[in-house]
Amino acid sequence: MRIVVDAMGGDHAPSEVVQGALDAVADDSAIEIILTGDEEKINDSIPPSINRSSVTIHHTSQTVEMTDRPSQVIKQKPNSSLVAGIEMIKSGKARAFVSAGSTGAILAASLFLLGRIEGVKRPALGVFFPSGNNGLVLCDAGANSEAKPEHLLQFAIMASEYMSHIQGVDEPKIGLLNIGVEETKGNDLYLESHALMKEYLPTFEGNVESRYLFEGKVDVVVCDGFLGNNLVKFAEGWIRHVHRDVSAQLEGQDESAEKKSEFRSIFSKAMRHFEYEEYGGVPLLGVNGDVIICHGSSPARAIKNAIFAAKKSAETNLVGSIRDDISSTVSLIEGSA
Amino acid sequence: MRIVVDAMGGDHAPSEVVQGALDAVADDSAIEIILTGDEEKINDSIPPSINRSSVTIHHTSQTVEMTDRPSQVIKQKPNSSLVAGIEMIKSGKARAFVSAGSTGAILAASLFLLGRIEGVKRPALGVFFPSGNNGLVLCDAGANSEAKPEHLLQFAIMASEYMSHIQGVDEPKIGLLNIGVEETKGNDLYLESHALMKEYLPTFEGNVESRYLFEGKVDVVVCDGFLGNNLVKFAEGWIRHVHRDVSAQLEGQDESAEKKSEFRSIFSKAMRHFEYEEYGGVPLLGVNGDVIICHGSSPARAIKNAIFAAKKSAETNLVGSIRDDISSTVSLIEGSA
Repeated sequence: MRIVVDAMGGDHAPSEVVQGALDAVADDSAIEIILTGDEEKINDSIPPSINRSSVTIHHTSQTVEMTDRPSQVIKQKPNSSLVAGIEMIKSGKARAFVSAGSTGAILAASLFLLGRIEGVKRPALGVFFPSGNNGLVLCDAGANSEAKPEHLLQFAIMASEYMSHIQGVDEPKIGLLNIGVEETKGNDLYLESHALMKEYLPTFEGNVESRYLFEGKVDVVVCDGFLGNNLVKFAEGWIRHVHRDVSAQLEGQDESAEKKSEFRSIFSKAMRHFEYEEYGGVPLLGVNGDVIICHGSSPARAIKNAIFAAKKSAETNLVGSIRDDISSTVSLIEGSA
Repeated sequence: MRIVVDAMGGDHAPSEVVQGALDAVADDSAIEIILTGDEEKINDSIPPSINRSSVTIHHTSQTVEMTDRPSQVIKQKPNSSLVAGIEMIKSGKARAFVSAGSTGAILAASLFLLGRIEGVKRPALGVFFPSGNNGLVLCDAGANSEAKPEHLLQFAIMASEYMSHIQGVDEPKIGLLNIGVEETKGNDLYLESHALMKEYLPTFEGNVESRYLFEGKVDVVVCDGFLGNNLVKFAEGWIRHVHRDVSAQLEGQDESAEKKSEFRSIFSKAMRHFEYEEYGGVPLLGVNGDVIICHGSSPARAIKNAIFAAKKSAETNLVGSIRDDISSTVSLIEGSA
């Protein structure tokens, strides 16, 4: 399967991105990679001894910066690694797209070039959290800063398909993030979303409090993108804070240098469970193509894992399943209206 | 100073609440405690050998349950430990009130009996997080599930007074929680709040992303109560998840039983930094009296610390400072209108 990777996107581009791509083809011979970006810089990032038969470069002269306005990228940077990459899915030259570039720009360019899946009102970001048995996906993690109840209903449907296609969870259980489990809790958006989800989603488990997210009761947790983005970033900051604080406290303890160093290494190893590299990218759900967005600071390992997720997304036809599922829910709603 | 404590509020009432009160008077001879609640049960919780000269009991026959509707508590449970306690601040029999009972009920009863501080539109909850140098307060942590920009402006003012009175921070720096630092980020509520805070708060530092909350850049972080409540609960669930997961990973490591046990004890000690007991209660900001709300699962240590916070709040006249500060901001806004 041919997957296009934006070699210029992310804080460690192109070196870590290229390395991640090389690692992916080395691990899985069914994968071919097209790297979009500055050919010279990409070539400089490929060690001479490497077998590059499964990797090709598509040269582009522009790079999307984090400061570029997402809505202007198509017009102002048509020959960027990001736009050229997404165009390759549209034209069928590649099956999936992976980038650690600007989320806003990827979203805008995907919407413009690929469009939404039929029936989908708003695309959404699903972020995977390790927890309980299978982990859980939180959606929307920030594609939209305002949302309506029918959007949240669709986020639930799309994120469920992600959990079943990419994480292998059968009939994922869905929760609505809220400040209490009672149906009467929350603001208007959440009250109305609850009613809608209760009516149309057979595996809806009701409200879930963020305090109990990691108890393994739900596989999908739905919220608006403003809350979701804040939560995902909070999780990242909080884990970094815990890591730093616990390490500092260890240093201050009355123990031998050798023992401290042992503890440090055990603790750091355990904390790797919470690093986004392990999970490799989040799907942009609802656009008409397989687009995987990686964290801006992604190292090679995260890129490699994102490429594997992109492959799984394409080969299991995640987009088609979302289309079918959204379409049957739309029929149900119209039937009952 | 006389402080009234709701002996029946919380998961571990009355035993842990009573113990916390006894510990507080033992540590600080300037404190007298009135315990409201079932006299017999309270007496059973006081060890016979204890000097109880600084503790009196005010018997009440009713107890507010978590299932009671907050708006009905005043009418249906007038002789409850919670309502009787708040009435004692109103009548001047006590200077401050501490409870680990239902937040909604405390809020409703405080509003009904004490009212709001002049000029305050909505009371708010401030939750203290340890971080950086002085820690930070997040406000509103859940008193309101809907909010307007002028409410967020007032939350900032009230939480700043809390940081300066209770945590001893001079001219606290204020941040608005948002999904990006740029002024153009966020939904309508946050865009308008940003503009308002920029105009009227001299120590406003702009937007802050939840990812960077713990870097010590701001002392006060403002958000609506729906987001705040979700974040505070998420922090609690996330820390519990990290604790459990790291401990489980540790068990699986190839180390001696002795080393594992040593690490477990060091790690657990370090994680105490993140336990709410250490910080003892959150102030209900904006009501016309000193009301401190404790976590429902508060052990004696948390109750004791909450009593100390209540004393500080009353003796430094936090309510008066909030009144002055809100009043001068209201004049400024009216002057420029």
